[in-house]
Amino acid sequence: ALASGNEKPQSPQKRASYRPPQHKVSDNDIYIRSYFFPSEESFSALINFIGAAKSSLDICVFNITDNDVTRAIADAKHRGVEVRIITDDEQLKCQGNDVERMRDQYGIPFKTDTDTSKFMHSKFAIIDRRAVWSGSYNWTVSARRSNNESAICTNDPNTAQSYSDEFEKLWSQF
Amino acid sequence: ALASGNEKPQSPQKRASYRPPQHKVSDNDIYIRSYFFPSEESFSALINFIGAAKSSLDICVFNITDNDVTRAIADAKHRGVEVRIITDDEQLKCQGNDVERMRDQYGIPFKTDTDTSKFMHSKFAIIDRRAVWSGSYNWTVSARRSNNESAICTNDPNTAQSYSDEFEKLWSQF
Ligand SMILES: [Zn+2]
Ligand SMILES: [Zn+2]
Repeated sequence: ALASGNEKPQSPQKRASYRPPQHKVSDNDIYIRSYFFPSEESFSALINFIGAAKSSLDICVFNITDNDVTRAIADAKHRGVEVRIITDDEQLKCQGNDVERMRDQYGIPFKTDTDTSKFMHSKFAIIDRRAVWSGSYNWTVSARRSNNESAICTNDPNTAQSYSDEFEKLWSQF
Repeated sequence: ALASGNEKPQSPQKRASYRPPQHKVSDNDIYIRSYFFPSEESFSALINFIGAAKSSLDICVFNITDNDVTRAIADAKHRGVEVRIITDDEQLKCQGNDVERMRDQYGIPFKTDTDTSKFMHSKFAIIDRRAVWSGSYNWTVSARRSNNESAICTNDPNTAQSYSDEFEKLWSQF
């Protein structure tokens, strides 16, 4: 079985009796984790995921209106991470959407689908082309506080590669 | 890395030169696969996933309107699989929604959230409490033919357990 992992290495407890995590990490430290909403714990996991980006953050999400998420994305940009956003054309015009503001204030480029009869409905992100967040969860306050949502986070290399390929395909296409 | 797997065992090619699949399956045949839409190939993977259910099929999807998916679910029920559906209360009333029809015609029980201000917005399914489909993909014709969507399918035991626990939690709660 795949073991649970952490985006950031855990600091050992400051006790002599520190023991390593019970779930042994399998080959190449591959993890796959499940998150459910509403849950501030799951939300923190998303913020930590974004916060772990070192070189690139590729976001492909239908709707982004949650200011706390926007702040985490802006922080990534500020520390030198190359951020790109793909989102839905109609959602862009909805109240509270932060994507145009992120371009104007932080210089984060974005693209949208260009067909009002279709949705760019995915909700995934890739950090450093090595780990993926993917699920039903839009980056909105209602998704965080009210909705039943689910997401998977994994650093499985094949999955990271597949999602990176999909992102590049859409980025070229739009 | 995790290797690609298949829900159904592949039949060997009928040639003397048959060689086993190149992707070696890792410990306990664990796989994690990515699917993107629109794609009839990805859609076939969903139908095959439903078709592989032997004992239970637990569905937790915002909106189900695609008759081909409904047929696959009905087929599962016919072959003796215990099928349960959790869906969204408002979506239930939308045109083309198949969930009430599945209860009336096939005896498939369903539950919904009971808060019109919230969405049961997840889109996942679990077969035999051992494999999970999870993503942005609603089981609708527009998601299949028009939208950009993504989903992950895995038989990782911890993931299957987490999703099964979430399903039971919602089934009790609603
Ligand atoms: Zn659109
Ligand atoms: Zn509702």
